[in-house]
Amino acid sequence: MLQLYFSPMACSLASRIALMEAGLDARYHLVHLRTKQVMDDDSDFRGVSPKGAVPVLVLENGERLTECAAVLQYIADRKPETALAPRFGDPDRYRLQEWLSFIGAEIHKAFLFPTFWYKDDGSLAKPRARIPQTLSVPSAHLADRDFLVGNSFTVADAHLTWALLLLRPAGIDVGQWPSLSAYLERMQARPAVKEAIATEMALRKTMAA
Amino acid sequence: MLQLYFSPMACSLASRIALMEAGLDARYHLVHLRTKQVMDDDSDFRGVSPKGAVPVLVLENGERLTECAAVLQYIADRKPETALAPRFGDPDRYRLQEWLSFIGAEIHKAFLFPTFWYKDDGSLAKPRARIPQTLSVPSAHLADRDFLVGNSFTVADAHLTWALLLLRPAGIDVGQWPSLSAYLERMQARPAVKEAIATEMALRKTMAA
Repeated sequence: MLQLYFSPMACSLASRIALMEAGLDARYHLVHLRTKQVMDDDSDFRGVSPKGAVPVLVLENGERLTECAAVLQYIADRKPETALAPRFGDPDRYRLQEWLSFIGAEIHKAFLFPTFWYKDDGSLAKPRARIPQTLSVPSAHLADRDFLVGNSFTVADAHLTWALLLLRPAGIDVGQWPSLSAYLERMQARPAVKEAIATEMALRKTMAA
Repeated sequence: MLQLYFSPMACSLASRIALMEAGLDARYHLVHLRTKQVMDDDSDFRGVSPKGAVPVLVLENGERLTECAAVLQYIADRKPETALAPRFGDPDRYRLQEWLSFIGAEIHKAFLFPTFWYKDDGSLAKPRARIPQTLSVPSAHLADRDFLVGNSFTVADAHLTWALLLLRPAGIDVGQWPSLSAYLERMQARPAVKEAIATEMALRKTMAA
């Protein structure tokens, strides 16, 4: 069985959504990202992955795969019949990779990461000034489309759904981009997405308590 | 023929290296990233790609593909016999995607991008403090390996070579990580890599003049 190291509402949420959309059972290990503690057994998470970041997907052969773009494509390819990624050879596969890169680098690493980890005004002024231009890209793309790639839900949608959910705690009103807020509402209405978010929100409250 | 919009020594250098390693002819369009000008015809680069970022690869059907991770995999798959990416279905393909994501997000977007675009000390203190931990990941991996993935050169090596080349102008001495400086020297000894760098360094000097 696959195993996912995750932290509630971190970008590993996209992997949980992908696993649930794929109907794949997995064992989930909660990680406290600031203390680098695996909550199951109080072990040091850096022993699982020296990067100290989630997601880490433990494959059935015991190997560990990191980075959202790789983990999401791996999960999708385990269940090709669910079409969570265009099949290899389909030109849309590169569109999927393009969106995974854009979300991971431009929304997550250039904006959400400094917002939640650096926190001070000096670090945040420029990332904040840049985020409207960044969000204009998916906003324009989704003005006349239901999904990022092709005509059905893919792991790129799992990734963007997570990123958009974090905009509010990052102080950005997604309502400024009507196509993005309508998209987020549609995605959150999907049973697997709804359940994944509810599970992680509940865990997050427990951790904060 | 493929066309690549690039800026000298920007991350589009990795795409040029990939094209040359693949032996693919391409038409190259120089972009001035700060003015967003296409130097061929003085047109506005945002007309080519609203993101205003390189690389943009124009495919033979006229579609435009962006983001290093997607462009590099597309180029590699055009010439599978050159093994610039493990074939789809090979588990190493996910390792390639893992490295492309790590280099694009953790080295480029979290460190090189703020260094060259934000510039002020307030923006840079935290990215600079974090880069040694980031570089320890490829440094440990390359301590006993010649290439990032498998036993031969892939587009992940093209990507990392570019990122390591920019460390010096970013004020980071790659000599602190002997496995990385030895790797960079090996990569720069490859004829295609050497030629790609020489071409872009010459163009960069022309632009600065």
